[in-house]
Amino acid sequence: MRLAQENALVLLTGRDGKHFLVRLRTGERFHSHRGVINHDDLIGKPLGREVLSHLGKRFVVLWPSIHDTLMNLKRVSQIIYPKETGQILLKLDLGNGKQVIEAGTGSGVLATALAHAVRPEGRVYSYDLREDMINVARRNLETAGLLDYVQLTCRDIAQGFAERDADAVFLDVREPWRYLGQVCEALCDGGFFGSLVPTTNQVSWLLTEMERHPFVSIEVMEILLREYKPVAARLRPQDRMVGHTGYLIFARKVALLAEGAGGAPGATAEDAER
Amino acid sequence: MRLAQENALVLLTGRDGKHFLVRLRTGERFHSHRGVINHDDLIGKPLGREVLSHLGKRFVVLWPSIHDTLMNLKRVSQIIYPKETGQILLKLDLGNGKQVIEAGTGSGVLATALAHAVRPEGRVYSYDLREDMINVARRNLETAGLLDYVQLTCRDIAQGFAERDADAVFLDVREPWRYLGQVCEALCDGGFFGSLVPTTNQVSWLLTEMERHPFVSIEVMEILLREYKPVAARLRPQDRMVGHTGYLIFARKVALLAEGAGGAPGATAEDAER
Amino acid sequence: MRLAQENALVLLTGRDGKHFLVRLRTGERFHSHRGVINHDDLIGKPLGREVLSHLGKRFVVLWPSIHDTLMNLKRVSQIIYPKETGQILLKLDLGNGKQVIEAGTGSGVLATALAHAVRPEGRVYSYDLREDMINVARRNLETAGLLDYVQLTCRDIAQGFAERDADAVFLDVREPWRYLGQVCEALCDGGFFGSLVPTTNQVSWLLTEMERHPFVSIEVMEILLREYKPVAARLRPQDRMVGHTGYLIFARKVALLAEGAGGAPGATAEDAER
Amino acid sequence: MRLAQENALVLLTGRDGKHFLVRLRTGERFHSHRGVINHDDLIGKPLGREVLSHLGKRFVVLWPSIHDTLMNLKRVSQIIYPKETGQILLKLDLGNGKQVIEAGTGSGVLATALAHAVRPEGRVYSYDLREDMINVARRNLETAGLLDYVQLTCRDIAQGFAERDADAVFLDVREPWRYLGQVCEALCDGGFFGSLVPTTNQVSWLLTEMERHPFVSIEVMEILLREYKPVAARLRPQDRMVGHTGYLIFARKVALLAEGAGGAPGATAEDAER
Repeated sequence: MRLAQENALVLLTGRDGKHFLVRLRTGERFHSHRGVINHDDLIGKPLGREVLSHLGKRFVVLWPSIHDTLMNLKRVSQIIYPKETGQILLKLDLGNGKQVIEAGTGSGVLATALAHAVRPEGRVYSYDLREDMINVARRNLETAGLLDYVQLTCRDIAQGFAERDADAVFLDVREPWRYLGQVCEALCDGGFFGSLVPTTNQVSWLLTEMERHPFVSIEVMEILLREYKPVAARLRPQDRMVGHTGYLIFARKVALLAEGAGGAPGATAEDAER
Repeated sequence: MRLAQENALVLLTGRDGKHFLVRLRTGERFHSHRGVINHDDLIGKPLGREVLSHLGKRFVVLWPSIHDTLMNLKRVSQIIYPKETGQILLKLDLGNGKQVIEAGTGSGVLATALAHAVRPEGRVYSYDLREDMINVARRNLETAGLLDYVQLTCRDIAQGFAERDADAVFLDVREPWRYLGQVCEALCDGGFFGSLVPTTNQVSWLLTEMERHPFVSIEVMEILLREYKPVAARLRPQDRMVGHTGYLIFARKVALLAEGAGGAPGATAEDAER
Repeated sequence: MRLAQENALVLLTGRDGKHFLVRLRTGERFHSHRGVINHDDLIGKPLGREVLSHLGKRFVVLWPSIHDTLMNLKRVSQIIYPKETGQILLKLDLGNGKQVIEAGTGSGVLATALAHAVRPEGRVYSYDLREDMINVARRNLETAGLLDYVQLTCRDIAQGFAERDADAVFLDVREPWRYLGQVCEALCDGGFFGSLVPTTNQVSWLLTEMERHPFVSIEVMEILLREYKPVAARLRPQDRMVGHTGYLIFARKVALLAEGAGGAPGATAEDAER
Repeated sequence: MRLAQENALVLLTGRDGKHFLVRLRTGERFHSHRGVINHDDLIGKPLGREVLSHLGKRFVVLWPSIHDTLMNLKRVSQIIYPKETGQILLKLDLGNGKQVIEAGTGSGVLATALAHAVRPEGRVYSYDLREDMINVARRNLETAGLLDYVQLTCRDIAQGFAERDADAVFLDVREPWRYLGQVCEALCDGGFFGSLVPTTNQVSWLLTEMERHPFVSIEVMEILLREYKPVAARLRPQDRMVGHTGYLIFARKVALLAEGAGGAPGATAEDAER
């Protein structure tokens, strides 16, 4: 059984499906059109149960999942959505112990997901040009309880990353093709590269530049999430859906042999193949 | 720098994009139409680099990512694909330390992904009716190096799960609606429930039965992955795509108040709303 | 060169992309935030050209396409969208000279598309329970200049259609499975049946009932339209899209042989196959 | 009741769903693994009914719909599929009496759909560089019974189209942006332009060039068709689907005022807006 802690974030959901993310503080009150709930009536009590507001309206008190957290953090920039995040985590091979670099930090939403995945022994190194973004991200990571796993750096990544032998690098910047040299320098051989860009032109520019760097297993994809109205007798997709967030690009950086290596017959044909 | 270990799985990728999953063993040889590579020339050497076959053809030697692993495990049943897996991990709030129950085990592909996510402190409890499936899954988990994090049980889940207070339960069985009582018994209050079913009829049956159990935040969705040909000057989606794998259903189990609780005016209206 | 006629509908499109459907009447004025245009300055003049408002703002004057017409008719009910309409016309084999029955009429949007397709020698027979719907549809068909090709009837189709040997029947009603006997009675042998329903449950119910009637070549499908921002240097899909309108069901009604016909060996196996 | 004519195409469909397009000729026989049917037993008899093969297996005899025809014509080049065709017909405002130009002819599949739509008073003017393609298309149009409505011309469209004041032009060529001058010369003011290209790069190039010509209402879209297994109790999408055919681009050609026209204040701002 989980208990609601002072200062913890909880999700209060009414029977109308509306939900509210609330930080519990002694003496405070949650107000909604469905009535008032005293924080003191929740603190120290079990989560995952229904409570009544002063109007007798039912609310469920839950802790937020990582998915809820990613969707509810403060956003001051376009964020990467969970539907892409799940794929990023698997394609970048992230799990406990991995060292992953990210730029730009933005609101810190992806950094939150990365930190959640590499805990407890891994680390996230997140870069952004803008100090104000770094500050928003720091607060969001604190809210999510994951700041310990993330090192935030305010720097132009054109100057390179401080890390070497990283397991993965993800670029969420406008012109990722400008930083592939820096990416390759920071990645270990066999390391994973990923990026998300919103336009097809950016995909083409990035692919063009990737061909000039030692990347293999290059993939481009998009992920569409189609939500349904969860009604047993009238099952149907929602009328409106997100039509686009971005294109995902993935690859692995390797140590290539020098061209002409081997000297075996057919080496020339190999070059043509690439 | 990562070194190739004896007995490790490596991914050998030729410049034609074809890849082979190979377990390294002293004295053995890898044969392909692009030539032979001696395992002894790889063991103890760095991964993430290019090598030459005896025909002078280039191969990249990589360790498999968790995504590669999920796609390359031995399959004796319909598996859950990574595009759904990423979403499942986020929606079930899985991360280091979580206790998650799964049925049925099948080939163990989802168990592998779950184990990867809850390492090192969490555990997966996986059930299947069939001993032969359990054995396939055990070998797959061993291959993936994740067997330590999974407890495999051969049992009809109609008899209930052995665990209590689990963080999450995922049902990948033909008639998940038959086991919701057992699911609720095993889950902690606030715990996460998920399921995947291939037909719309199954979604309707599951939703119908879920209304008779204490679930909230019920969601139904599907995920479409659209892959592109990664060619800068001729960018376009692949001609064919996977049109369907299954519908994902998610919810949280909570402790509801008794109907009529509170006695406040409007309680009746509340019941109607639900 | 086409001239703008008195009483004709024209489409006025500003350079901001906003468009207005206007009926030209002597002495009237078109007002917008981008200035005023006198109808008299358009009537009798060529269409397909740019004109200036009194503020010097440019507007293009166009006649509406059938697609524009379908999107701009008055709607008092859920309509069938052009993305489905194009598919319906091809699957029902509609073209000049065909006799097609439709129920329910609704706002008359599909009737407009059907009439446009079977002109000049074909006819549309459209049924609706509600007189008020019939009246809306009549005005819309008049607006589109296609009323001559459509016979509107206010009747409960449970009582059957008046026509026999029709080339096609399309049902856009809540419970199409209730009228399959009437559909088969009205269709010629080999005639085309189509329907659109919004939920998966309705698809299942319709399929169940279709198995009890002489239908072959049964198909179920949905059509997704993905629109892009038409910007050369930043090409990308629109952020939001229509996630669902409905499921399309098509089949052909045939004259089946009596079960047991032929008496040839294997006839029993045939029955099992179906 | 429709009778099967000598020389007509019929569709023979077995109960296993396999279908065969057969031209009826006196004295000939249809052979399949489900038995033989004499053409003479079909000619002069009603269509839309079931017949028995000499093995007592049931076949339904149907005339092909326009959709069946489009899918079954001989293909010697990539064709435009019905899912796009329906949208093209509506967006280009095609119906009885319209004059529409098309290039390239290819196998004549789109020309067949266009001719079907503009009959009986309209005409299709179709151009291709290759005489062999023109010949394939001629045979296909003859098969479909629509050759009377199509004028086929073997010519490089860089030299321009012979028609003026056409209602619509559709380009299905590799580099449509090279022919926009010729398109605008052939189209009436207000006329409809459409094109289909497979890559995003081509879309960008076409959009870039369209901005230099008098086009308005520019739209880019793609259409996805998702087919379902038509089984009432196990309704689900097909496992595989067509992931991509092409991007559709539509616009209308208009007579623009000279830049600086009007001289009203704000004219400069207008230019900027465009």
